[in-house]
Amino acid sequence: MVDFDLRSANARLRASNPLIQCITNTVVQQFSANVLLAIGASPAMLDHEADAAQFTRIAGGLSVNFGTATNQQFLAADAAIDAANADAKPWVLDPVSIGAVDYRTTRIRRAAASSPTAIRGNASEIAALAGVGLGGRGVESTDEVDAVIPAAAELARSTGAIVAVSGPRDAIVAHIDGADRVARIDGGHTFMPLVIGTGCSLGAVTAAYLVGASTASAKFEAVVAAHSHFKVAGEAAAASAKGPGSYSVSFLDELHALTDEQLATARVETGDVEGPIDGARS
Amino acid sequence: MVDFDLRSANARLRASNPLIQCITNTVVQQFSANVLLAIGASPAMLDHEADAAQFTRIAGGLSVNFGTATNQQFLAADAAIDAANADAKPWVLDPVSIGAVDYRTTRIRRAAASSPTAIRGNASEIAALAGVGLGGRGVESTDEVDAVIPAAAELARSTGAIVAVSGPRDAIVAHIDGADRVARIDGGHTFMPLVIGTGCSLGAVTAAYLVGASTASAKFEAVVAAHSHFKVAGEAAAASAKGPGSYSVSFLDELHALTDEQLATARVETGDVEGPIDGARS
Amino acid sequence: MVDFDLRSANARLRASNPLIQCITNTVVQQFSANVLLAIGASPAMLDHEADAAQFTRIAGGLSVNFGTATNQQFLAADAAIDAANADAKPWVLDPVSIGAVDYRTTRIRRAAASSPTAIRGNASEIAALAGVGLGGRGVESTDEVDAVIPAAAELARSTGAIVAVSGPRDAIVAHIDGADRVARIDGGHTFMPLVIGTGCSLGAVTAAYLVGASTASAKFEAVVAAHSHFKVAGEAAAASAKGPGSYSVSFLDELHALTDEQLATARVETGDVEGPIDGARS
Repeated sequence: MVDFDLRSANARLRASNPLIQCITNTVVQQFSANVLLAIGASPAMLDHEADAAQFTRIAGGLSVNFGTATNQQFLAADAAIDAANADAKPWVLDPVSIGAVDYRTTRIRRAAASSPTAIRGNASEIAALAGVGLGGRGVESTDEVDAVIPAAAELARSTGAIVAVSGPRDAIVAHIDGADRVARIDGGHTFMPLVIGTGCSLGAVTAAYLVGASTASAKFEAVVAAHSHFKVAGEAAAASAKGPGSYSVSFLDELHALTDEQLATARVETGDVEGPIDGARS
Repeated sequence: MVDFDLRSANARLRASNPLIQCITNTVVQQFSANVLLAIGASPAMLDHEADAAQFTRIAGGLSVNFGTATNQQFLAADAAIDAANADAKPWVLDPVSIGAVDYRTTRIRRAAASSPTAIRGNASEIAALAGVGLGGRGVESTDEVDAVIPAAAELARSTGAIVAVSGPRDAIVAHIDGADRVARIDGGHTFMPLVIGTGCSLGAVTAAYLVGASTASAKFEAVVAAHSHFKVAGEAAAASAKGPGSYSVSFLDELHALTDEQLATARVETGDVEGPIDGARS
Repeated sequence: MVDFDLRSANARLRASNPLIQCITNTVVQQFSANVLLAIGASPAMLDHEADAAQFTRIAGGLSVNFGTATNQQFLAADAAIDAANADAKPWVLDPVSIGAVDYRTTRIRRAAASSPTAIRGNASEIAALAGVGLGGRGVESTDEVDAVIPAAAELARSTGAIVAVSGPRDAIVAHIDGADRVARIDGGHTFMPLVIGTGCSLGAVTAAYLVGASTASAKFEAVVAAHSHFKVAGEAAAASAKGPGSYSVSFLDELHALTDEQLATARVETGDVEGPIDGARS
């Protein structure tokens, strides 16, 4: 079993105040920036091909999402990804919209083949990127997250990335020392998918947690910590929410107020892919 | 008199969870997405010319607004509108900024001539699109909404669209069976125009309500239901608002909480254009 | 000592409801628009090179910020700045990202040489534009604001602009009648820099206050009034905030609720650059 030190992961984030470059869709830029500020990171949305890669060299990490990509953003992402890889900086790919339309799918597959540190999407997006179908659009369910784990593991092996599946339960899959490890995280709230950007901003948060994580295990832990931060804050936010509008406000407050002790209360289960879940044994 | 079954219109929306493609300005993308999620629809802001039309074929409806349009968005809109028309899917045009500047005006007129299912704007925008002037920028008034109704009716006849005029009172005009029908809806709050996107997002909501409405009467009812949803939620939101910031939050909460019974309480009056208002007779 | 009539500056703003064109980054467009609406101005984000300059001729003022600039925005800004200058309309430059990357820095320097009415940035941005280094990224401090004032004065002399340094204390520097005047404004709250757009939107608010200010002293007063509006509302907003999410909401409420009497309570000290602060003498 992998033991996660979520408190230390959070302490590293808060101490380093990492600068995260986001080449992301215009729908979620404001929310993603506020989320990064709330957790103790600094956002920068530079996405022009003339200077994006130059900025990557001073950033701590990079988040890429083609939700409303322009040609400028596609070119900027190509350059910024190369710069991140050249400097061994973490970068996270969000395959939003994959499968729906051909051009975007082609660009997402090209990015996925460029050694992302992590890939984060919902179950249907991860399935589509892995080349398997889940069948249809629909409410994301816990069953659906569990069903996509084998495909996520295949994707982790083929890309070298940690693969995170977001949903009512998150599943983080990593191929470490020849084994396919999975961590499942429960929490959040049904209002969360009604707030645009709660998925996309998690890619940026994942990049922020990855800054300073050098080993495969530390990277796995960082991705689990990022998702745990959202699950714990997302559950706490519901207490003062009357609907998705007030939930969004509370969520930012809770992301900011979360202590490393609270983060350590995240309900995380770990195990091997296709094996029993460790937590379920006890 | 037209009788509106607003409860059924809302039930159809909630049951179908329509996917609405928005080619819209970057100022209101986040708010529009959150509004669509709150009412039970799914937003998608795909606006790249390489795949916008392909996405239209899987979307339920389309909303077009050139508020901050790029060349990419203009090309994407051209293709998406053609795809929507080819599949007889509803699409809504918001003529924001018409009249102020020449290039945008030309593009808006071109879109208006491409068979929109509905056109939604404020009184001065509808007047400008209809080719009549209202004179000057100013606070939108109820008188101004009433004054533009004849021009809206002319626009409805010339374009084939249902024409919605938003303001302190909304007026929805449709040319049905040779008659110019109008529905006036009261409600909302003075904070509403202080929240950016409360107008633009209503175009997307109108598209969502139009999905599945096949007859001319059903389409008229759908547009009235969309505007009623905003008027009722907009009035309820004021109860817990201290200013435009908290009003915006409450508005999303109320959009989401609104039941079909509450929707049926909307203060809608119907009549013929230039004739007396039905409700005013009794 | 310069005496500021902040009440009159606010009254002029509210009476004129100025239309402010913003060519600004997509991260802060929604927030900036809501801020302008809250203070009693009207936002318009037209940024297409085909019609931006035409719009400038009907706008009251212009705000320029290249945070996520596209080629279209760079071209639109060039044309809009020329149009503003031709009509002697106020325009404000926000040098966000200057120094970090070369291409953007070149474009910002070019805009700074085009006679902006005011330049607004944080201490490190103003230092970079003035050609002096402050050394490193870091938490903005009061000391840092004071340290950059001589460089801001040099920038004010070389560009002809009023130069505003935002931070935990704001400093507004103007070269008037051969003297370098400075106004320091205290207020705000530590949550303010955790809300994206509280800096960028202040550039737009500055443009709004500048509309109708014709003399050098009136322009200095207008920039001080804009920053005082933020400092007073930003301090009041903390009372009902539990974190950066609720602070953002309260801030918009307070911006809107602020009266001219409240604005006049702003803690403003004036003096000469490099001389003692007037308020500190008494």
